[in-house]
Amino acid sequence: MSSISAVDVIAIKRDGGVLSDEMINWVLDAYQRRVVADEQMSALLMAVFVNGMTSTELATWTDSMIASGERLDLSMLSRPTVDKHSTGGVGDKVSLVLAALVAACGAAVPQLSGRGLGYTGGTLDKLESIPGWRASLSNEEILAQLEAVGAVICAAGAGLAPVDAKLYALRDVTATVESIPLIASSIMSKKIAEGTGGLVLDVKVGRGAFIRDVERARELAHTMVRLGQAHGVATVAKLTPMDEPLGLAVGNALEVAESVEVLRGAGPDDVRALTLELATIMMELAGLDADPATKLADGSAYEVYQRMILAQGGDPDAELPRARVNESVRSPRAGFIRRVDAHVVGVAAWRLGAGRARKEDPVSPSAGVLCRVVAGDAIERGQPLFDLHADDEAHLVAGRDAIAGAVEIGDEPIGAATNNLGLVRG
Amino acid sequence: MSSISAVDVIAIKRDGGVLSDEMINWVLDAYQRRVVADEQMSALLMAVFVNGMTSTELATWTDSMIASGERLDLSMLSRPTVDKHSTGGVGDKVSLVLAALVAACGAAVPQLSGRGLGYTGGTLDKLESIPGWRASLSNEEILAQLEAVGAVICAAGAGLAPVDAKLYALRDVTATVESIPLIASSIMSKKIAEGTGGLVLDVKVGRGAFIRDVERARELAHTMVRLGQAHGVATVAKLTPMDEPLGLAVGNALEVAESVEVLRGAGPDDVRALTLELATIMMELAGLDADPATKLADGSAYEVYQRMILAQGGDPDAELPRARVNESVRSPRAGFIRRVDAHVVGVAAWRLGAGRARKEDPVSPSAGVLCRVVAGDAIERGQPLFDLHADDEAHLVAGRDAIAGAVEIGDEPIGAATNNLGLVRG
Repeated sequence: MSSISAVDVIAIKRDGGVLSDEMINWVLDAYQRRVVADEQMSALLMAVFVNGMTSTELATWTDSMIASGERLDLSMLSRPTVDKHSTGGVGDKVSLVLAALVAACGAAVPQLSGRGLGYTGGTLDKLESIPGWRASLSNEEILAQLEAVGAVICAAGAGLAPVDAKLYALRDVTATVESIPLIASSIMSKKIAEGTGGLVLDVKVGRGAFIRDVERARELAHTMVRLGQAHGVATVAKLTPMDEPLGLAVGNALEVAESVEVLRGAGPDDVRALTLELATIMMELAGLDADPATKLADGSAYEVYQRMILAQGGDPDAELPRARVNESVRSPRAGFIRRVDAHVVGVAAWRLGAGRARKEDPVSPSAGVLCRVVAGDAIERGQPLFDLHADDEAHLVAGRDAIAGAVEIGDEPIGAATNNLGLVRG
Repeated sequence: MSSISAVDVIAIKRDGGVLSDEMINWVLDAYQRRVVADEQMSALLMAVFVNGMTSTELATWTDSMIASGERLDLSMLSRPTVDKHSTGGVGDKVSLVLAALVAACGAAVPQLSGRGLGYTGGTLDKLESIPGWRASLSNEEILAQLEAVGAVICAAGAGLAPVDAKLYALRDVTATVESIPLIASSIMSKKIAEGTGGLVLDVKVGRGAFIRDVERARELAHTMVRLGQAHGVATVAKLTPMDEPLGLAVGNALEVAESVEVLRGAGPDDVRALTLELATIMMELAGLDADPATKLADGSAYEVYQRMILAQGGDPDAELPRARVNESVRSPRAGFIRRVDAHVVGVAAWRLGAGRARKEDPVSPSAGVLCRVVAGDAIERGQPLFDLHADDEAHLVAGRDAIAGAVEIGDEPIGAATNNLGLVRG
């Protein structure tokens, strides 16, 4: 082992070669022990970015990331385990509804999440807008809640694939984030380490996602599905378009409120449809035959949601935080909404205070954008297009500037778009 | 300026794009100011390694390196200035002889050097084996000595292209040394900043050089010649083979002794021939028509050498340091020397103590290898092939182990090899 040098490992990948299992295990372990320095790892990551990894290299790299920490053992649970991960999109609050729904259908959903750096906060930030709710649980609490409630959404502790946090912070400042093997190993190492038996991946593609090209999204989906299968996790990926916001609410508390609407049988059609579709796949992965649509309609999912929030100290009936300043953006003309640009709406929500620029920044629970129209709607001049929510005037002004150009208005109605770009199975 | 981010600059080069002048100037300046971190610069260097630079990018990058420090002004000298740089080979002591010879021919040779990490020390380390000689001179001392003696070999102060030292240390640990634009800008930034009017580059190619492929060597030569011309330095490159050691001596004091032999009209033919060839090119670059062969034969060059050493505190007549332990390696058989492997001899000299592994290590002045045979020689069984010199038994043993396989002995004599792979002119 001691005969391996960081420079040799970097040079092999730089020249398009293949790293041995021994080299990969050595370099990730040495990086954690600070024997390999940040500047050496970033050179290696750039070489991986440019020259890629074989599927064998990637499997070993992912194994090695998992081996850097602990692995949860969920085998003593009485329910089959199945989880979901989304690569992230504007207004994507599906996890909140889905975890409760799938638990209501008889599975256990061990959703251990990170926080991320999106337009808005991640799922944990959204749930933290609920008074009292806490994201940090011990492994014993996770297991007990999975057995008693069937679903847990909590922070992935530092124990799961801990080298990933170090790698991610480095990738973030060295332009090596958007690499398919590096993304795939980052996501899958944590999901495999959390111990789930099945996994559905929602791979977003479009203007409001970090991948805008469907072929690249498909490649990422295939890569993650192969990694899951190779590690004994039954994995299916769904590609979904992310050109328009999902639902109407974009912001932390705003999205929780919309999730509750869906759980109560109302809410936007697109959120409900995608949730049911993912739940159906998760039923298949868990080997269960409950009908998610029934469990949503009969209130079982909402009941599980309330228990899930209560179990983590939250009050599901408490009023959510409300923004101090509000403003509606109105349509300058009559016509038909041709599109609502997810990226522009996302940036506006971020400028309003819903997202963070750096990992250590706080997010505003109440800030965000509530869309008042969707593509295809007929509108009158002066009709509200968006409601902007912020904690202060400065953020409101920044969001108002950012929202310009978010809608395209035409003279004719448009046809319906698809929300289905296909499934990727192992 | 403040709108440029390191991540954006890295991403452009990562994706094969072209960096603007503003970006290059910003990133090198910000790196010196520690606004751009080592891990960001190493990612950028790896992207440059893989995707290269256009000639415009490289010219700007080199300009920016020069602008990171001071630039000597040699215009008040009464002599034309011309310098030489070798990319480094085993036994290459040509600079010592050449500087004195070209000065004897009427030019001023401002040879400001670094120390490097070769098989042996660099030119400065070699000269430091002369009792009293010092490598560090002020700019005023450099100018005065150039006017009075015509040649100076001294340490390039930290003032010339200072960002290069930081970049080189980073490249050394991140497998980004062997990149043609990065090598070319490192060499040429310092040579341009030193203020020379003309420059001959000796680009070594072969088993004992860091470039083993003649086409890559030619590409490096062209790149450096273009950079020199673009910055107003008349530049010619010569490609020379480095498969066998140059001359017989490999080691610091050993090479000084051999240089003095050449200056006194004796010494190995190959050292004298290459020195005269490079001196002839330098005469052309300086616009002088003195004949180097005459100046070597009539003792003028040796006289300049003595004055050059004296001017820097050295005693040209002092005895050089001698190794404490010595040993001859003898031929196991009779036959003809088919080749002496420069790389193997170089590694042996390094193990004997003549070179350094890290920048801060000392070198032994006396250690090294004296070759007793060259390719083509007929030998008897038991005849000495090499004399090994070291400061202690441990280094001697290490050198003895390393020298195995340095010669190939056959039954038939071989033909003469070329020392000429061609010139590259602007």
